[in-house]
Amino acid sequence: MSNKIPVGVLGATGTVGQRFVQLLADHPWFEVVVVTGSDRTVGRPYREGVNWKINGDVPDGIGDLIVQPTEPNLVIGGTPPVVFSALPTSEAKEWEPKFAAAGYAVVTNASSFRMTPDVPLLIPEVNPDHTGLIPTQQANNGWSGFIVASPNCSTTSIILPLKVWQEAFGLEAALITTMQAISGAGYPGVSSMDILDNIVPHIGGEDVKLENEPKKLLGDVVDGVMQLADIRTSAQANRVPVFDGHLASVSAQLGQKVSVEEAIAALENWQAPAVCAELPSSPERPLIYRHEVDRPQPRLDRDSGNGLAWTVGKVRECGVLDLRFMAITHNTLRGAASGSILNAELLVVQGYIQK
Amino acid sequence: MSNKIPVGVLGATGTVGQRFVQLLADHPWFEVVVVTGSDRTVGRPYREGVNWKINGDVPDGIGDLIVQPTEPNLVIGGTPPVVFSALPTSEAKEWEPKFAAAGYAVVTNASSFRMTPDVPLLIPEVNPDHTGLIPTQQANNGWSGFIVASPNCSTTSIILPLKVWQEAFGLEAALITTMQAISGAGYPGVSSMDILDNIVPHIGGEDVKLENEPKKLLGDVVDGVMQLADIRTSAQANRVPVFDGHLASVSAQLGQKVSVEEAIAALENWQAPAVCAELPSSPERPLIYRHEVDRPQPRLDRDSGNGLAWTVGKVRECGVLDLRFMAITHNTLRGAASGSILNAELLVVQGYIQK
Amino acid sequence: MSNKIPVGVLGATGTVGQRFVQLLADHPWFEVVVVTGSDRTVGRPYREGVNWKINGDVPDGIGDLIVQPTEPNLVIGGTPPVVFSALPTSEAKEWEPKFAAAGYAVVTNASSFRMTPDVPLLIPEVNPDHTGLIPTQQANNGWSGFIVASPNCSTTSIILPLKVWQEAFGLEAALITTMQAISGAGYPGVSSMDILDNIVPHIGGEDVKLENEPKKLLGDVVDGVMQLADIRTSAQANRVPVFDGHLASVSAQLGQKVSVEEAIAALENWQAPAVCAELPSSPERPLIYRHEVDRPQPRLDRDSGNGLAWTVGKVRECGVLDLRFMAITHNTLRGAASGSILNAELLVVQGYIQK
Amino acid sequence: MSNKIPVGVLGATGTVGQRFVQLLADHPWFEVVVVTGSDRTVGRPYREGVNWKINGDVPDGIGDLIVQPTEPNLVIGGTPPVVFSALPTSEAKEWEPKFAAAGYAVVTNASSFRMTPDVPLLIPEVNPDHTGLIPTQQANNGWSGFIVASPNCSTTSIILPLKVWQEAFGLEAALITTMQAISGAGYPGVSSMDILDNIVPHIGGEDVKLENEPKKLLGDVVDGVMQLADIRTSAQANRVPVFDGHLASVSAQLGQKVSVEEAIAALENWQAPAVCAELPSSPERPLIYRHEVDRPQPRLDRDSGNGLAWTVGKVRECGVLDLRFMAITHNTLRGAASGSILNAELLVVQGYIQK
Repeated sequence: MSNKIPVGVLGATGTVGQRFVQLLADHPWFEVVVVTGSDRTVGRPYREGVNWKINGDVPDGIGDLIVQPTEPNLVIGGTPPVVFSALPTSEAKEWEPKFAAAGYAVVTNASSFRMTPDVPLLIPEVNPDHTGLIPTQQANNGWSGFIVASPNCSTTSIILPLKVWQEAFGLEAALITTMQAISGAGYPGVSSMDILDNIVPHIGGEDVKLENEPKKLLGDVVDGVMQLADIRTSAQANRVPVFDGHLASVSAQLGQKVSVEEAIAALENWQAPAVCAELPSSPERPLIYRHEVDRPQPRLDRDSGNGLAWTVGKVRECGVLDLRFMAITHNTLRGAASGSILNAELLVVQGYIQK
Repeated sequence: MSNKIPVGVLGATGTVGQRFVQLLADHPWFEVVVVTGSDRTVGRPYREGVNWKINGDVPDGIGDLIVQPTEPNLVIGGTPPVVFSALPTSEAKEWEPKFAAAGYAVVTNASSFRMTPDVPLLIPEVNPDHTGLIPTQQANNGWSGFIVASPNCSTTSIILPLKVWQEAFGLEAALITTMQAISGAGYPGVSSMDILDNIVPHIGGEDVKLENEPKKLLGDVVDGVMQLADIRTSAQANRVPVFDGHLASVSAQLGQKVSVEEAIAALENWQAPAVCAELPSSPERPLIYRHEVDRPQPRLDRDSGNGLAWTVGKVRECGVLDLRFMAITHNTLRGAASGSILNAELLVVQGYIQK
Repeated sequence: MSNKIPVGVLGATGTVGQRFVQLLADHPWFEVVVVTGSDRTVGRPYREGVNWKINGDVPDGIGDLIVQPTEPNLVIGGTPPVVFSALPTSEAKEWEPKFAAAGYAVVTNASSFRMTPDVPLLIPEVNPDHTGLIPTQQANNGWSGFIVASPNCSTTSIILPLKVWQEAFGLEAALITTMQAISGAGYPGVSSMDILDNIVPHIGGEDVKLENEPKKLLGDVVDGVMQLADIRTSAQANRVPVFDGHLASVSAQLGQKVSVEEAIAALENWQAPAVCAELPSSPERPLIYRHEVDRPQPRLDRDSGNGLAWTVGKVRECGVLDLRFMAITHNTLRGAASGSILNAELLVVQGYIQK
Repeated sequence: MSNKIPVGVLGATGTVGQRFVQLLADHPWFEVVVVTGSDRTVGRPYREGVNWKINGDVPDGIGDLIVQPTEPNLVIGGTPPVVFSALPTSEAKEWEPKFAAAGYAVVTNASSFRMTPDVPLLIPEVNPDHTGLIPTQQANNGWSGFIVASPNCSTTSIILPLKVWQEAFGLEAALITTMQAISGAGYPGVSSMDILDNIVPHIGGEDVKLENEPKKLLGDVVDGVMQLADIRTSAQANRVPVFDGHLASVSAQLGQKVSVEEAIAALENWQAPAVCAELPSSPERPLIYRHEVDRPQPRLDRDSGNGLAWTVGKVRECGVLDLRFMAITHNTLRGAASGSILNAELLVVQGYIQK
């Protein structure tokens, strides 16, 4: 019998849910014992209920699980019982609090509670101490469980280099233009008639997420209270005909005058928080700086660090603000399922989930 | 016998040269009587020398012209004799001054002399009075002919809305990120292995052109002398898997506080300079503002105004500078061959070329 | 007041319906006076009810028409009243017979009655005499109106060269593999996640249409009765990441031994039926043979003849059957809306619709 | 010190050469000790001479090797010394015989000698006994070394299912239409202007390779002499906008009447030759049959079996020949570098290369 931590996946049949299932199939610490899905799929083996749309096949063990309804009476085990949530926004809004109230650790990829002040918006390499909001959240709501959220996939792509510069030099403003992959919209998602030989300069709600989430991720938790970072932000999200990988062009206003060399050195010398070394999914080098003039590129860099690394390049002077750069992460791995799994690993190390 | 103005096309076999040939085939004022090309093609009928890569067939009349060497002894006729230059940069640098010295009106799409102070960098809708540099240029060099240049195709895509706002409100800074079509690189140009399912965040020399050329286009010619505009600029040019149409995301710092409504009204109420009404290629509405949240898009908007209009949209507040917008033009039409033809039409109306 | 023939468009808000509206806006003979749509759009101006997805804007006159329900009590005028049908298959199956019974001439692009023995499956260049089935159809059903159908867009792409060879040499078998554009599936149609960097070797029902429809198009109407051609067919339809234009690779078994030169000569010397010269939409050269080894190509050839021509190339010996070739037509023009309009023009010339 | 078999890679800086280097970096039996390249790169560390165009980085050990000229005096060691050849066709034609004459085992991916009667055209799963031509080849030429060739990547994609049916039922004819990935043309290879939103129905020389190579692969070596299979073939190769993976549509005429079920069963029950179990790169299931109506697809199936498996689907009756099917393999893995490495592994097991 396995002595891994049993987990459930909420909304396991959707695009992000499939990624959770795929990634957790061979995870050293977690084992999927429950999957939930929509009415259409409940009661059927996962293998039959799912319209599997990613490489490879449905993992053997999980494929045989019978899809359960998404209700907080799942038999998972563990202390607390852990669920990864790949629920659509509206369902997440309804169900995640109920799971938290019922004692579950809800590790979610949904956007519903990202900006809720007492919900940690978490990336282990960026703000591992923001889990300090969990006791506040539990006290505020009277919950025995809790919710921990991952940021939007586009926010993820830009946040680590900004964090590094914020720590090193201070950060006052970030002006962002993204070029985002179609897989970010799920399946069927973007119509081929909209995106073949084309760009769509609009992704519903994305600009606002890109402008708000960095303020939380780069903020501080002081005495269990969230303090947003005082940074001006502006974002334009574009959909491009690329399969995976969100590329972003960013101009930053820093807290002090910094040379291009110093700014690159800060990125290259950055060390991940010590706790990251204990997380099995954490890549050896979470931040890769490339000096080639034509990098980063989605196809060449999205899979670096097993799809969990940031690749940054083209740091140079900005004629309007201080410095420009480009960054990319894999939107369905680092920016979605893998990011949430890494959050769960952090919760284990920090003791919020018992091993 | 035709009483059109006879013209030559220098470098007629390349991608831009082909566009000149296609567009001039049915032009109401101009008639191609000479085409020049590389050693490989000299002496052969144009139809056979060219590797025709654009829609439709080689125009009948021009297809039979024998390709000439690019030397300033072409028998064209006209006062002055007119040549459209689609030469590569290095050849343009060598040959265009020799043609100007020999009395030709050189209407060029090449980048070689764009930033030369006494060469007009010209867009009729933006700065028709910059032809006032021509006498200075002739005096400075002792030329009987002259050179007039079109801006880079990416500069073109952003310049008209900036000009409108500059006139209405003043303009202090522009921060630019472009998503540029593959046709901008000519043929064979961008390898499919570089751009399929990918973005390349580098186009050689393009960032600098995007940062410099607006200062000249938005500047003033005073007493025959070029005065650059005092605007801070920053640009990042990206190549995307789109066939035609350069889309740009721009944030602007204006000279005064302006509401989104006022900024849109300025674009919608803008009137082209009166001279534009006399130019046969000028579109009825050179500037189209679209209110849909997901426009402009390359595939839907690049052909507006017969490929000669700017389409602008998404004007809104920028959290870092004042306002953001997106704009597109067709890079090989407005941004290249059609733009130069429109310049030549302006030169006719202004008397620099005799009808 | 216009003295054009008034027409209605059934299902005018869908992808094919939009093409009908766009193409009929400037038609020399027809004028759209009625548009019908789904419950969601009924009662609204067409401009507001439609989600316009093709180049350009909604035509001015038609944009103001109020969308009607699809029922055979439309006030159109004309003898008989004419409706172009862009209805989905199931709705076409229900409504088209009701319109025909009520006296309307139904010129349809839907598949519902294509293989019905007394419904002409019509392409003017291929089988203009098949309208001889109309009296039979009216007698069989007791209808005062009638239905005339266009073939599937993929069938269209291959049929003219096969017809030419059938007439010249006899035709025994055709083995077909298509590479079909995404626009053939309408909007939203094919998910970008299915087709970017991919091919989908399945289009529901398409193989069967490709195998059956040629037998009817190449058959004979004898004494008002349809006789299918005795041809063996086999088809594999593939969806490819191309926006417009269905390209097909075909191997044919002919009725006699024919050299490649003779086969090409037959295509180049073919003359359209005389009646085609009277049809305003008919291209000057409906069949273009290209000798380049790398043609036809979708992007370069789909728009030939204003989107109504067949482009054929690569005729050569087949090591298994007799000869191979490749052919392309524009799937939403020749293969859909334009093809039906051309059918209506033929019906006018033949007197089935009064001018 | 390593006790792996030392090998050289000829033409290691090109696209296929890079794949060899990448795949051999962690090979259990082979170790790259020499790389050769063009004059431009000779004398430089491989890492600097190569324009690395595939995922990941240049492997550490190999990146430091100094590029050698391609001449048969390389210091490799081994009995015989082994070279993998990724040379361009013309260079392969000149140099491979010189290496064979000088005693090297030349395992080549080039096309130069594929159809030479005494050179094995080899795929371990298809015709492992064709290495029986090696002694003949050595005797005919007086060589101490030898040449073994891999087939064209498009031939590879169709050959295994045809082999299975040939063995089970006999095979008389194969009619082939391919849809081939851009990576098959190397770098820069196909211009994006030729293939974005397009298909090119021509790949130089490919049709002939597709028609000839199956006759050799499916033929017999009898008493050291090659006997081609008596099969009629016909092929049309098309380039499509897909990054990796050659998909083919094939109709086959079999030696006997076979039901679809029997034909599928033959594929599903096929067992690889016993020797394949000894080859470390051989996938567990070299032939995967998929029952979904929309498979195989390049993006979903090209990486199956670590890029070394055939995926076959859509077996059904053909209205012209007997049966149709579709098949895919990864063109730069199974169809190129991986295929040649597998050939070398076979040569080790069979004793032509000493371990």
